[in-house]
Amino acid sequence: MPQDIYDKIMMMAKRRGFIYPSFEIYGGIAGFYDYGPLGSQLKNNIENLWRSYYLLKDNCIEIITPTITLYEVLKASGHVDEFTDLSVDCGKCKRSYKVEDIIEKGISVEQAVKENRIFCPTCKSELHDAHPVNLMFSTTIGVGEGRKAFLRPETAQGIFTNFHLLYQYSRKKLPFGVVQIGKGYRNEISPRQGTLRQREFSMAEAEIFLDPKDKTHPLFDSKKDEELILVDNEKEWKISVADAVKKKIINNQALAYYVYLTQDFLLSAGVDRKKFRFRKHAADELAHYATECWDAELYSERFGWVECVGIADRSAYDLNAHIVSSSVDMYALRPFEESQDVTVKKVVPKMNMLGPRFSGKAGKIKEQLEQMDAEKVNNITVTIDGESIDIPKDCYEIVEKKEKQSGEKFIPHVIEPSYGIDRILYFLLEHNYVEGKKNEEEYTILKLNPIVASIKVGVFPLIGDDKLIAVAKEIDIMLRTEGIATFYDESGTIGRRYARMDEIGTPFCITIDHETLNDKKVTVRNRDTTKQERKKIQDVASYIKDKITL
Amino acid sequence: MPQDIYDKIMMMAKRRGFIYPSFEIYGGIAGFYDYGPLGSQLKNNIENLWRSYYLLKDNCIEIITPTITLYEVLKASGHVDEFTDLSVDCGKCKRSYKVEDIIEKGISVEQAVKENRIFCPTCKSELHDAHPVNLMFSTTIGVGEGRKAFLRPETAQGIFTNFHLLYQYSRKKLPFGVVQIGKGYRNEISPRQGTLRQREFSMAEAEIFLDPKDKTHPLFDSKKDEELILVDNEKEWKISVADAVKKKIINNQALAYYVYLTQDFLLSAGVDRKKFRFRKHAADELAHYATECWDAELYSERFGWVECVGIADRSAYDLNAHIVSSSVDMYALRPFEESQDVTVKKVVPKMNMLGPRFSGKAGKIKEQLEQMDAEKVNNITVTIDGESIDIPKDCYEIVEKKEKQSGEKFIPHVIEPSYGIDRILYFLLEHNYVEGKKNEEEYTILKLNPIVASIKVGVFPLIGDDKLIAVAKEIDIMLRTEGIATFYDESGTIGRRYARMDEIGTPFCITIDHETLNDKKVTVRNRDTTKQERKKIQDVASYIKDKITL
Repeated sequence: MPQDIYDKIMMMAKRRGFIYPSFEIYGGIAGFYDYGPLGSQLKNNIENLWRSYYLLKDNCIEIITPTITLYEVLKASGHVDEFTDLSVDCGKCKRSYKVEDIIEKGISVEQAVKENRIFCPTCKSELHDAHPVNLMFSTTIGVGEGRKAFLRPETAQGIFTNFHLLYQYSRKKLPFGVVQIGKGYRNEISPRQGTLRQREFSMAEAEIFLDPKDKTHPLFDSKKDEELILVDNEKEWKISVADAVKKKIINNQALAYYVYLTQDFLLSAGVDRKKFRFRKHAADELAHYATECWDAELYSERFGWVECVGIADRSAYDLNAHIVSSSVDMYALRPFEESQDVTVKKVVPKMNMLGPRFSGKAGKIKEQLEQMDAEKVNNITVTIDGESIDIPKDCYEIVEKKEKQSGEKFIPHVIEPSYGIDRILYFLLEHNYVEGKKNEEEYTILKLNPIVASIKVGVFPLIGDDKLIAVAKEIDIMLRTEGIATFYDESGTIGRRYARMDEIGTPFCITIDHETLNDKKVTVRNRDTTKQERKKIQDVASYIKDKITL
Repeated sequence: MPQDIYDKIMMMAKRRGFIYPSFEIYGGIAGFYDYGPLGSQLKNNIENLWRSYYLLKDNCIEIITPTITLYEVLKASGHVDEFTDLSVDCGKCKRSYKVEDIIEKGISVEQAVKENRIFCPTCKSELHDAHPVNLMFSTTIGVGEGRKAFLRPETAQGIFTNFHLLYQYSRKKLPFGVVQIGKGYRNEISPRQGTLRQREFSMAEAEIFLDPKDKTHPLFDSKKDEELILVDNEKEWKISVADAVKKKIINNQALAYYVYLTQDFLLSAGVDRKKFRFRKHAADELAHYATECWDAELYSERFGWVECVGIADRSAYDLNAHIVSSSVDMYALRPFEESQDVTVKKVVPKMNMLGPRFSGKAGKIKEQLEQMDAEKVNNITVTIDGESIDIPKDCYEIVEKKEKQSGEKFIPHVIEPSYGIDRILYFLLEHNYVEGKKNEEEYTILKLNPIVASIKVGVFPLIGDDKLIAVAKEIDIMLRTEGIATFYDESGTIGRRYARMDEIGTPFCITIDHETLNDKKVTVRNRDTTKQERKKIQDVASYIKDKITL
């Protein structure tokens, strides 16, 4: 089989230090990859560029929550019941397959199951008993029976379960956005798409909370004339952000704004504009929590169009689910013009009953009771230090009170751009991988955007002369001290050294020659133009910095 | 119980958005914490400062490997057998305890077990049958039986298992260092020290590979006169880096250099020098892989001296273990003066036997056989796509060959500084938490080093005047565009706004007043001196940047 671009990139990626298959010395396992020295810098740079879009341009806040997630959270969010793939097992080959992966093209999963058209790809047996398999990795916290937990399938739930605290941090003003960058996990049945389908992956997610009666965005107007690249029935077309909303192609301004922000981010990271498009989910592909979803798809020569970002309108789904399951008040407040008298129900704990019955735990129970949403409670169960405790009805009252209220309670809606960082990283390699010839030899250049390139500058003494080496090393340290990632190299011809840097996407190379000792200037060579310019040593850092920042 | 500083900090941390207990709406569980908006910025800043020490000053390379780790890796590394705590269960209370946590002060665990001096802290029953409990979270990859795996107890193994690739990346020159920043996991039996003993935590680890015959470090000389703060028998004393090595207090130059680098990092992050010291592990506290270990300990009013960094000499322990278990050649080469004829053993696969027997897998088996260390193989088992395959002896030969060799093979030694980022973060809060009074009211200032502070600048229009607000918002955006984290605030008196920023450690506040409209200057107020200076708007960003970078 001739190598395709995926094979070539993965070989280069391993040889040069971008991506290694994990646990290779123990035979490896599908769905796990390591980032080597160049890959980890590329990944950090992509994430930092993402932060500059979401934290600086969009003014979101960032939080960090554990990857291990309690059962209760994921039961409430629907993942325990819904985060599944339809699987079949082959009794003969002793392997399990995801149905979707092994059926003929052109038929649906439903059809394949109904018409018994599922066959083992290895032994060709007809397979039956397709069944949903939950895709979360499970584990147990503590010893003995412990508490059931999962590795999170998305970072989003860590944000939702803190909504009331984040709303307070944001001074109870909507809209506000919260991001999380970190690991997500999906225990794929038998992953087959290399680095594009990992069992442990890096995500960057933003949850934008907004009033369902006001799905606008303060920055919408500044982007309304920008063009979005969409696809419908395999046909690509363009439409302005404003028109997409006006013509109801995208449901609301906020969603349209984040669709555009995603496009802006991906293109400025270095995705090929001709291999980029947005596709709207059909009703039957929507995740269990979404009312509308747009995928940013990138084109791969081997894999075709691949989803790399999903921008979903999750409506009030998750917050509502957590309010129902936890009975904690996670509403937002829509201020009245002036405050009104309203009748509200409150849970009022009776300490004279709680105290004797629950002694040391009574205080914690009281706290939990007081934050409960009295409208939603029926039989109250609280969880204290991991123990589930039923609270008898004589330990509290539900009291109706007249209160002056300054606004009306509601559950915010959520717009969620969710990015698969590993996929984006792979596509930056594929879209920027340029093959050619130089002096009859194969010559590849990785035309990474300088903003995300792993190494920014190669630093070379022209020849192995002690004086040149000393100056080159000084410049190398000077650049690193300025926070610029360098690669110092004194071995081989200059041409060979350029070639090594071109192959890994280093945008600039600096050569120190004998002239440098006199004129304090170096030669700066540009990867893409191959032009060389003399620059004063003292100006080099700021020259480079200017090219590698947004 | 009067609140101690830990309680005060944790209350402030929750109220202001540094640290939240995880899953609180479902009752929470010990050992898991979330970082809110301020905590996550503080953590990012600590990690970036760490990177500037290890990647830029020390020129290490960074890699990223999965948190889910195959059984084989952790079996080889010793964690399956050794990563345990001694535990006892109380039959009456149905709880498990770590023996170390519940015995009287002054007696050892061995003594407590031998003399039956272990009692349930809740019901006072005498407890027996103390037994080791493995502290790794376990999970399964794939469906059905799948493959056994753990959440990694340290990031280090991901580095060791890639040694041969990283050695090649580093052009086969020692010493070189590889770092990893990421999650580590420890399924504590019953964690009791709040944020200081988390079950999921953030680590920053460096593995420095060096020739055991040459444990020097290229930067040692530049640090040899610096003073180290050590403790021996509860007595603190100081000694220069050079003397510590000369007097054999620290075994070698490389270890001493990294002990110093740790001190330098912690003090420049903002740890209180008077609450900082290094303690050497006694022989009986060393981890299973270490020959010498120094702990950087920080002092907490509630918890006493707490280990926050361990700098260990892991010798050849881990690489040797992985060579033995995987049979992969992960040696380094010490070049001879000139190349020599040496007799070596090689594994030579016989394709005419492998082919018919293993068909499609023969190629992969051949590759694995060829990279095996023939000195170490006996019965060969390889793992192909997760399947363990015994290779019959007639499928390969062990051949002795004369070869010209350019050097001698050896297993590098490893020096490992291992940082607990969450602990350091907590100590930066405790060491910089300053209580006082202002106008008869309690007033706290968090004197975080500007380099790590979550928010760098508060931006305030003096009053709610539209013109001032417009300029203030422009300045806010201008600073954020420059990558400076800001907090825009127009509510309350200026004094109140300063107070809010002081409480969360914001080093600078900028006030926009009516004068600003004329002279294009703003007032910059310094948190620690409370001095105010007028600065031109155009100079503010570079003024701040200068203070917040190393």
